Amino acid sequence: MGKMKGLVLSAENFEDLELFVPYYRFLEEGIQVEIASLEKGEFTGKHGYRAKADKRLDQVRPEDYRFLLLPGGRAPQALRKEEKALEIARHFFEKGKPVFAICHGPQILVSAGLLKGRRVTCYRSVAPEVRKAGAIYEDKEVVVDGKLVTSRVPEDLPAFLKEIFKILKKETGK
Amino acid sequence: MGKMKGLVLSAENFEDLELFVPYYRFLEEGIQVEIASLEKGEFTGKHGYRAKADKRLDQVRPEDYRFLLLPGGRAPQALRKEEKALEIARHFFEKGKPVFAICHGPQILVSAGLLKGRRVTCYRSVAPEVRKAGAIYEDKEVVVDGKLVTSRVPEDLPAFLKEIFKILKKETGK
Repeated sequence: MGKMKGLVLSAENFEDLELFVPYYRFLEEGIQVEIASLEKGEFTGKHGYRAKADKRLDQVRPEDYRFLLLPGGRAPQALRKEEKALEIARHFFEKGKPVFAICHGPQILVSAGLLKGRRVTCYRSVAPEVRKAGAIYEDKEVVVDGKLVTSRVPEDLPAFLKEIFKILKKETGK
Repeated sequence: MGKMKGLVLSAENFEDLELFVPYYRFLEEGIQVEIASLEKGEFTGKHGYRAKADKRLDQVRPEDYRFLLLPGGRAPQALRKEEKALEIARHFFEKGKPVFAICHGPQILVSAGLLKGRRVTCYRSVAPEVRKAGAIYEDKEVVVDGKLVTSRVPEDLPAFLKEIFKILKKETGK
């Protein structure tokens, strides 16, 4: 999986573990990961950890990436207002590339109009808008629907990553 | 690796990512992990995440575990004063079981008198006492000396875990 490149969309007040646990997991596997945000440079999680955006949203060429990760926290609330973030999310769905969203991350997919008829989970308080967007909400640690993997909270990260890596291994034929 | 059981020693003011990133990684792999601390129940990291101790130090039977993880933060400063924590660390060295320590984690190994002649790394400010304890300090993201794996800071976690899993796979013959 060493030559694979993934994209993370996040912003201020991200959920620290939901960004760093998958991010470090991808790096452990030799996967290259770039983080894009509203601005380039450092931004801060709810718990005070600092992440660094390699790119501004408008610098992202989504065709360069094999998968998309959307961590939670209050970041998705800001990102969902950005048309470019929604375009990026749509690219991954249209091209049949894997999308991984946890906690408030699926809010971006709601705003992008991508969840109609899809089976998903998310943070409990996000469930009503996910249902309203036409998704089938399930209160489980991880829900896999094709190449869309969703989870609810940081405690779900082990199950989330287990399913993510099943998909990435299939993608690379390993 | 599903039937393996590991032990984490930590306490108040642990470095959150250094506990949770490996902890979730072990769970992802189906490894059972127990956390032991000064008291049973919840304790809080430097960044506000809460971990839960399954056992008090004096309830730990080290022979029940295949490996030991020592995360950093200010927790090792408290643990190194507990004779039982030092006894536990000595058990893993005597039995030739893997020990993984990051950041301030090696302070426990210093107090247990286990680092003489060993190659290790650790948080920069811990280096002088590690050297004084007779260890060969190296300023690298990860140092592997037999079954002892050490790292410096949260950013080293991908390299730390990569080496940890090389050792655990050997242990289980996978």
